[in-house]
Amino acid sequence: MLLFWQIEDIRISTPTVNLVSSHCAQATVWWLLDTNSPFYFFFKIPSSVHSTDFSTMQSDRSIDSTRNATAELKSPIDVAEYLFTRLQQIGVRSIHGLPGDYNLVALDYIPNLGLKWVGNVNELNAGYAADGYARIKGMSAIVTTFGVGELSTVNAIAGAYSEHVPIVHIVGMPSTASQKDGMLLHHTLGNGNFNVFADMNKEISCAMAKLNDPREAAALIDDTLQKCWIQSRPVYITLPTDMVQKKIEGERLKTPIDLSFPTNDMAREDYVVEVVLKYLQSAKNPIILIDACAIRHRVLEEVHDLIDKTKLPVFVTPMGKGAVNETHPSFGGVYAGDGSQEEVQKRVEASDLILTIGAIKSDFNTAGFTYKTSQLNTIDFHSTHTTVRYSEYPGVSMRGVLRKVIQQVDLSKLSAVPGPKMENKVEENEDKSETITQKWIWPVVGQQFLKKDDIVITETGTANFGIWETKFPAGVTAISQVLWGSIGYSVGALQGACLAARDAGMDRRSILFVGDGSFQLTAQEVSTMIRLGLKPIIFVICNDGFTIERFIHGMDAEYNDIQQWHFKDLVKVFGAKEGTYRTYQIKTKEEVTKLFADKDFNSADVLQFVELYIPKKDAPRGLVLTAEAAAQRNAKE
Amino acid sequence: MLLFWQIEDIRISTPTVNLVSSHCAQATVWWLLDTNSPFYFFFKIPSSVHSTDFSTMQSDRSIDSTRNATAELKSPIDVAEYLFTRLQQIGVRSIHGLPGDYNLVALDYIPNLGLKWVGNVNELNAGYAADGYARIKGMSAIVTTFGVGELSTVNAIAGAYSEHVPIVHIVGMPSTASQKDGMLLHHTLGNGNFNVFADMNKEISCAMAKLNDPREAAALIDDTLQKCWIQSRPVYITLPTDMVQKKIEGERLKTPIDLSFPTNDMAREDYVVEVVLKYLQSAKNPIILIDACAIRHRVLEEVHDLIDKTKLPVFVTPMGKGAVNETHPSFGGVYAGDGSQEEVQKRVEASDLILTIGAIKSDFNTAGFTYKTSQLNTIDFHSTHTTVRYSEYPGVSMRGVLRKVIQQVDLSKLSAVPGPKMENKVEENEDKSETITQKWIWPVVGQQFLKKDDIVITETGTANFGIWETKFPAGVTAISQVLWGSIGYSVGALQGACLAARDAGMDRRSILFVGDGSFQLTAQEVSTMIRLGLKPIIFVICNDGFTIERFIHGMDAEYNDIQQWHFKDLVKVFGAKEGTYRTYQIKTKEEVTKLFADKDFNSADVLQFVELYIPKKDAPRGLVLTAEAAAQRNAKE
Repeated sequence: MLLFWQIEDIRISTPTVNLVSSHCAQATVWWLLDTNSPFYFFFKIPSSVHSTDFSTMQSDRSIDSTRNATAELKSPIDVAEYLFTRLQQIGVRSIHGLPGDYNLVALDYIPNLGLKWVGNVNELNAGYAADGYARIKGMSAIVTTFGVGELSTVNAIAGAYSEHVPIVHIVGMPSTASQKDGMLLHHTLGNGNFNVFADMNKEISCAMAKLNDPREAAALIDDTLQKCWIQSRPVYITLPTDMVQKKIEGERLKTPIDLSFPTNDMAREDYVVEVVLKYLQSAKNPIILIDACAIRHRVLEEVHDLIDKTKLPVFVTPMGKGAVNETHPSFGGVYAGDGSQEEVQKRVEASDLILTIGAIKSDFNTAGFTYKTSQLNTIDFHSTHTTVRYSEYPGVSMRGVLRKVIQQVDLSKLSAVPGPKMENKVEENEDKSETITQKWIWPVVGQQFLKKDDIVITETGTANFGIWETKFPAGVTAISQVLWGSIGYSVGALQGACLAARDAGMDRRSILFVGDGSFQLTAQEVSTMIRLGLKPIIFVICNDGFTIERFIHGMDAEYNDIQQWHFKDLVKVFGAKEGTYRTYQIKTKEEVTKLFADKDFNSADVLQFVELYIPKKDAPRGLVLTAEAAAQRNAKE
Repeated sequence: MLLFWQIEDIRISTPTVNLVSSHCAQATVWWLLDTNSPFYFFFKIPSSVHSTDFSTMQSDRSIDSTRNATAELKSPIDVAEYLFTRLQQIGVRSIHGLPGDYNLVALDYIPNLGLKWVGNVNELNAGYAADGYARIKGMSAIVTTFGVGELSTVNAIAGAYSEHVPIVHIVGMPSTASQKDGMLLHHTLGNGNFNVFADMNKEISCAMAKLNDPREAAALIDDTLQKCWIQSRPVYITLPTDMVQKKIEGERLKTPIDLSFPTNDMAREDYVVEVVLKYLQSAKNPIILIDACAIRHRVLEEVHDLIDKTKLPVFVTPMGKGAVNETHPSFGGVYAGDGSQEEVQKRVEASDLILTIGAIKSDFNTAGFTYKTSQLNTIDFHSTHTTVRYSEYPGVSMRGVLRKVIQQVDLSKLSAVPGPKMENKVEENEDKSETITQKWIWPVVGQQFLKKDDIVITETGTANFGIWETKFPAGVTAISQVLWGSIGYSVGALQGACLAARDAGMDRRSILFVGDGSFQLTAQEVSTMIRLGLKPIIFVICNDGFTIERFIHGMDAEYNDIQQWHFKDLVKVFGAKEGTYRTYQIKTKEEVTKLFADKDFNSADVLQFVELYIPKKDAPRGLVLTAEAAAQRNAKE
């Protein structure tokens, strides 16, 4: 039997051709290495050999051939140095994660390259933090150790996959020799299988690189990081202990990884643009609706140019919050079906053409699938395709189409009917009581507290529904996890976002709103913020447990209760030094107003921690609606 | 095309035969349901239909046929009630986990059945706690929610798989209707694939049941719980929201699940017994070495009978610690290769026949593979096979073999040469300093503090190596995670173990030794202990970070440092009421001795939290050796 197998996407830069042969226990193997092009393997395999033996053969090859190759390197550089340098080139300045014996040697490179090691308190928190970091800085990296470390963060990685966030997950692995021998090592299942955990990551990573061979390492790293950036989703890289210091070609680092987005097929793109313009220019009251993937797939420049040029009313979904300058005259508010403010819902659903950009029409993003819009009146722009009414155009990405629509739209033919203006509705949500309510606090946050360029993180629960009612100043970035919705996420994300802003040299306040139940899951990440000297503002909404769950099922059930903590005292227990933090306990509207007017508080010059008391059975309108829909759907057969 | 497909292992108890037909969008389907035997499907499938369509057809079938079946039930009972009742029958009294909207309705059954809902602080901690609970109570259960909840605990489940701990993991899933429609729900990857997370669990569960059909539910539950108990490993059960209240036959609950262990083939067993006896009776100085799987696979009764009968010297491995009554005259100490006490190593390695029972010869269990014993002098007893020297006997489980060896051994032919006696070596590890050292504290713990029936939990790090030097009183159970070695494990495990002891009505102290670095990962589980009113004794070894990592690599590296917390003050912050706890800060040997003599402290009448200060570069001898070996292996190509 003669097998011919081409591995795609792997290129090695030195212009050498090697024809070599070797053999493993089961078969003789030949291969041709043309290092300037995809390379080829030729295996002569006895019929008795199973296909699973290929991996062994590859390992044999790599070990033999590497020894010859090292001498040929122009600027030898260690694999770990190559990897971290590439991350640095892309803009990563801090590496999240925890030490573990399979990654320790790799960690030595981090300070040596001028990068910062975060050293999180646990891996789940580290993953959440990496997610928050990437949302601010464009990309992030986390280093964990084999098995125990990587599995602890798998929920955060799945969340990043779900929500299109580019995280490079680097896993320190046992040496290739230990793997080959199937050794009974700690952090294994005891069955000699070293692939189980990588396999678990396959469906939650857009690319995977196992750095088992120095000859492939650089190409694999570059390819994987490129995919991470362009697809905006996590990638998974294994780094065995014996590969960390292996020499590879450093010359390659002089050419940056190509991070430009692929362009569409011109003819197809032009066709789609024509179709879009036809509908857009004949619509009577078109509007624009911005959603999550406009942010994640980096088309906000196109979005703003489109708004500026067309003057069309623009709305955001809950996941699109922060995508648009909310002080822009065209900004109308948050559309979430029945969860919208009345004038928003009316305007959006009366539109005869909705341009949705980067939509993720999930239950929590649509107040329980309550859109009353028709696909016949919709054009959907996505990173991988465009859909005009029911016509689908796979492979036609929004970036190129939007740019051409902006250039080519004939404004004389465009009907731009002004929409509503969003306001922070403070007065109409007042009542006579001093009790802080959900319907009162969120407009107040927008009116009295937030300022330009703030980063606002809201946890799944009352906060990420409440924020629908908050009109942002310009430049505010919103972070939440509306689709994945893992409680506890926001505390880690705050650490990452706050650090990313500092790493970018930006003077931005990082502000968290998190429920008391959710906060408990990941509370210790406040310790990392203290150690790093970060200065976030943390509001823990003290409302006696899991309010979002209460509204779905079990309003008074014990399982929705939590242990009462003295939340603000945690800051001191976690080692914050006197003078480096302030804590507050806020129980009345008057105290809120006073706090929001406090100059010191607003200056965010130290870490600040606020206990904010709201009754446990109080929830934003959007949450109540969405929870009702969820309960109904759960019961439906 | 006519397909004939038999599903094995599924039996339904009502003696009804239904011949029904239906069709899905793609094909006509007939099937025969003989509910007293494995049932059969007949599909007539047009060639255009892909095999992936089968799942849809099955769902159609189940929904139609269930409606007919419900009326025939003698004692209708809800699926969730059935499941939790089965768990109760097996001895589970408390259910670990967190609420999430896909499991809320199921949680209602827990108090109604007289079970206790734990309500952990996060899912990883809950998984660790379930592991600790199972090690004391025989089996445990954890309920999580789809995606976010289940993935957070996956590290704990993998650990339980690795270390042979039976945990029933129940995942609240979106309704079967939502799954079928591929709805874009929260907690999904947004791609309509509801199987991703179950697939991740395949390699870390010994059985899996997807409860998508009430007709199959009872049989699947019983089969899965049986496998969990017998194989002593985690199982994974999905419970969609619409299945929770579906009616199934309750009569079945009158027959307990058969938890008896399968017996060996008699002829093969007898043959092995004969071989074992031949070698045992001709050996000059045989010894017994007890390891983890003797505990996990429930043969401690056989082990003790064997020791009592033969009077052979008996040793334990680190993972076997606690398996044997250490006050027994035959007990010689801990064997871990070069990590053993000198007289132990000498005696074990001089033996011409070692009976190892339930061995897991992993790196951390053997001080870095430093056994100097020969397979030629070894008989290995396992749950799945027996190995005599190099002869393997697959399928011959240790239980039956050991029992017959005990019955048949001819004591007149047996050479039982007494071995060393383990002592707590306090005096010889004294020095003139008041500084608490690793080599001093562990024998002192054995001599001055531990008492009969204590549960002692040691975290991966200095504690689980240090405990090798502690001789236990009778009845002490040791819990640690030597193979999986996930730091933070022990804090959750303490909660579970302590609760399990209380659930069992046992008056046992639960004592934890955990390093400060590891404690930080899972610290908030102390809050659950407070809420449950548990009374553990927690020693946090304050030694400035990850000492075990320092000894592997990076002795002074920043990545092995941690943020300094005021550890003991956490208890109050987590809401412990005055009078329900005591905290201590212990910095000298004198303070240790005083504490261990303190009557109140020893009474364990409230939760007690001790900061125990040991220098950061001090480690037990076993750890130093193992770390050196790990570093060498990591570097080896």
